[in-house]
Amino acid sequence: MMKKLMIVVAGGSGNRMKSLLPKQFINLKGKPILMHTIERLIAFDHSMEIVLVLPENQIDFWKQLCVEYNFQISCKIAKGGKTRFESVKNGLVKIQEECLVGVHDGVRPLVSDETLRDCFETAAETGSAVPVTDAIESIRVVDNDNSKSVDRKYYKMVQTPQVFASDKLVKAYEQLFNASFTDDASVYEKAGYKIHLAKGNRENIKVTTPMDLIIAEALMSSE
Amino acid sequence: MMKKLMIVVAGGSGNRMKSLLPKQFINLKGKPILMHTIERLIAFDHSMEIVLVLPENQIDFWKQLCVEYNFQISCKIAKGGKTRFESVKNGLVKIQEECLVGVHDGVRPLVSDETLRDCFETAAETGSAVPVTDAIESIRVVDNDNSKSVDRKYYKMVQTPQVFASDKLVKAYEQLFNASFTDDASVYEKAGYKIHLAKGNRENIKVTTPMDLIIAEALMSSE
Repeated sequence: MMKKLMIVVAGGSGNRMKSLLPKQFINLKGKPILMHTIERLIAFDHSMEIVLVLPENQIDFWKQLCVEYNFQISCKIAKGGKTRFESVKNGLVKIQEECLVGVHDGVRPLVSDETLRDCFETAAETGSAVPVTDAIESIRVVDNDNSKSVDRKYYKMVQTPQVFASDKLVKAYEQLFNASFTDDASVYEKAGYKIHLAKGNRENIKVTTPMDLIIAEALMSSE
Repeated sequence: MMKKLMIVVAGGSGNRMKSLLPKQFINLKGKPILMHTIERLIAFDHSMEIVLVLPENQIDFWKQLCVEYNFQISCKIAKGGKTRFESVKNGLVKIQEECLVGVHDGVRPLVSDETLRDCFETAAETGSAVPVTDAIESIRVVDNDNSKSVDRKYYKMVQTPQVFASDKLVKAYEQLFNASFTDDASVYEKAGYKIHLAKGNRENIKVTTPMDLIIAEALMSSE
């Protein structure tokens, strides 16, 4: 299989977490969430290259945290942009050779080995992999003052890492920014490429609120 | 406001919980999940009438549990049917006077007072209330081998209790069963009535897997 590279996007503020500390640095079971996330990736594959995208004004703070927590995993650092699109684009610049490139949220520390494996294998075969889980609640689609129920079996909840053949993803990110770009899959498919789905894991939540932090801690403790 | 009645549907088996014990009886912080759920409802409104729908072969076991746990909240009991539709219908038979009738999953012990209040107030004004939360992940809709991203702001995740004017819900449940009936809202709107949305709470998860149990315990402990 081709070399694996993961762009870990950590551009968050602490707003929704009701905290001054950006969410990626919040302490989860003894260390910043972001360190858990990076450790998971490396535990899955020691040879994976990590490109960490951080807002410029958080880079020194991160380096300080690495010293404080004796965090030894070396990451290339890229500067975050004003949008996620721009941040990923800045991360892509760090690619030096054709590879399988994933983009992962810095605040998803509970991604499983199985999810990572399925994403990289699917992308190796097909060019792309987006991990999804089934919808577990009924879903309604709203339209102004009206709403109607839809059949949830056709709807999938999207996680990260989203993994791609690097040449295609780089090309997709040459497009101009578009408001419909909510994740890497939407950028990739807008460029005319096909998205393939992989199997996510339900524990792989995005930790963005105090409630998520409670859940992440409980799930991590139960592993 | 009109009298409130809640049909609590507890028809589950233990399959997905990998347990022989049906999920509504699994122990959560010292007592069966179903007891937590009923206590929440009564804590919100002491005068609420509870109709508990249980599979016929679980009714004696439930009565035993009530003695064992000294559970004092009196509930009318209705027999569960082969489908959720039939179970709710059996519960509706217990209604003795026009009221606001809710249908709530027995394994949603984390419904908040705010959700209950908004559901009953909205239903009192409009005839119906379905609690929803925003989608927090990106969503893809699948169609055979293809999938496309949709704008998640138009999609809402549906919870319970779903609350209705009793006369309309009873009338809606006179329809023949239809495979599109996934929840009470879908039955109600199929009868030609309009669904109004209320504000759910994200903690109000349906506890159906071992992972959900871990989450429910953590959230309950943090309250």
